[in-house]
Amino acid sequence: MTIDYQQNDSVLTEQVISSFEGTPDARLRTLMQSLVRHLHAFVREMEPTEAEWMGAIRFLTETGKMCDDLVRQEFILLSDTLGVSMLVDAINHRYATGATDTTVFGPFYIKGMPERRYGENMALTPGTPAVVRGRVLDTAGEPVADALLDVWQTAENGMYSGQDTAQPHGNLRGRYRTDAEGRYAITTILPVSYPIPTDGPVGKMLSATGRHPWRPAHLHFMIDAPGHRKLVTHLFDEADPFLKSDAVFGVKPSLMVAYRDRPANDELARQFNLAGPYREACYDFVLDRS
Amino acid sequence: MTIDYQQNDSVLTEQVISSFEGTPDARLRTLMQSLVRHLHAFVREMEPTEAEWMGAIRFLTETGKMCDDLVRQEFILLSDTLGVSMLVDAINHRYATGATDTTVFGPFYIKGMPERRYGENMALTPGTPAVVRGRVLDTAGEPVADALLDVWQTAENGMYSGQDTAQPHGNLRGRYRTDAEGRYAITTILPVSYPIPTDGPVGKMLSATGRHPWRPAHLHFMIDAPGHRKLVTHLFDEADPFLKSDAVFGVKPSLMVAYRDRPANDELARQFNLAGPYREACYDFVLDRS
Repeated sequence: MTIDYQQNDSVLTEQVISSFEGTPDARLRTLMQSLVRHLHAFVREMEPTEAEWMGAIRFLTETGKMCDDLVRQEFILLSDTLGVSMLVDAINHRYATGATDTTVFGPFYIKGMPERRYGENMALTPGTPAVVRGRVLDTAGEPVADALLDVWQTAENGMYSGQDTAQPHGNLRGRYRTDAEGRYAITTILPVSYPIPTDGPVGKMLSATGRHPWRPAHLHFMIDAPGHRKLVTHLFDEADPFLKSDAVFGVKPSLMVAYRDRPANDELARQFNLAGPYREACYDFVLDRS
Repeated sequence: MTIDYQQNDSVLTEQVISSFEGTPDARLRTLMQSLVRHLHAFVREMEPTEAEWMGAIRFLTETGKMCDDLVRQEFILLSDTLGVSMLVDAINHRYATGATDTTVFGPFYIKGMPERRYGENMALTPGTPAVVRGRVLDTAGEPVADALLDVWQTAENGMYSGQDTAQPHGNLRGRYRTDAEGRYAITTILPVSYPIPTDGPVGKMLSATGRHPWRPAHLHFMIDAPGHRKLVTHLFDEADPFLKSDAVFGVKPSLMVAYRDRPANDELARQFNLAGPYREACYDFVLDRS
């Protein structure tokens, strides 16, 4: 790059953009040049003081330092609370095929959780017993056999196992498979609304801007089957008070389910060894072909 | 905030912007809403894959983790190498008053360095001996007495004391004061060009984009005097090969000086106890009234 000595803030942006002209990878070049253009446009519009700029540096530094390698990823939380995660999700799932809508992955997934039988109880901590069941179908309505459903949700204290190290290993997490008719069934507890972690920079940002940290109650799914596109989504409890103000903007109307009251000792309760009354939610997932 | 259930990526940005509507501080509200608008515009333009988005999350996380509390601030380096620091500097110093131009502060300043006498040698490590001297004036051309000049530069190995813990305390750092005629004099060594730290994410970014990490040789100044605006700037060696491609875009034509050859034993050499031939650079700083 060559810097024009008549440098001033009106030509600075062009100088920075041209400094990336020699980037070997064309996609990276485009990304960096677009980043500089948009970042400088933001700075020019806001004209931050040096103290505000240093505040931003400190915020980003603290956000990085808050991350650990396992379950706390503060930059994902920041992306979530600024709506960027949902935007990236939307951009990458613009299929008008009738497949189930996607939503944010979130930072609390853990790989390699226990494989569980049809209808097995994944709740090792107390709560309102619930069964979630339905089918996995393709876009032609045909059942998808042997699909893998990786499932996770919080305990009644609003924390995920792993995040909350006091919970037993694999609590409220598990990998289920569909049977030959594409059916799945999960015994669990009713999910609860919970706040995203507020003890870091993102929590401070929400508090300073008068936003609450709550997410409506939901059950996470990552569904994978050969020949199909992997589906990452949630099912939300349609009775939750935070559906209209999800802190991470993840709610879509197609992803809401009713957890209906079921009596003790009905056929399903006997099949899945449920001792008393329980709730039941039914949902059929539709996978795109890959 | 209220989320419209017909959420899709065309209305998502407006939902996120409106979520900040309740921010009590008006400036913070404007900053956050502008940030969301520009950040979403960047994401919409680039349409990152989920892998690219995760790459960005990882880059920011590693950048935060690279920072320490003392001398390594990787987010300042990132801001510097993306031209944001110089842009913020320009926005905050738009005075057409004849005062000396400003440039980036950089991450390597340390407070409370030794107070030094007129002409005192601040170099405790080897190099080409050099004297930098001149006056501090106000915009009317009157000398500014008792101005404090906080000065720092790298050693010949391209590292600052503090950053390089092997260097003696206070090496190539010091606080000088102008005399009654506004004169200052610093005995030091010729500054060298040096690479910004390349062992972190910013170094990887420069390498991946075909940019070099070098800064042209310079001496840092922070000049403070009662009744005047604090001046943060550099003096660059006009003979440096990296003047036209400074990794942090900090060079301005008005900040270049010649380090001229001087013989051993001339009057100045005797005054400042210089043993052999040396270099001399002269520069008058002009401070704005505050």
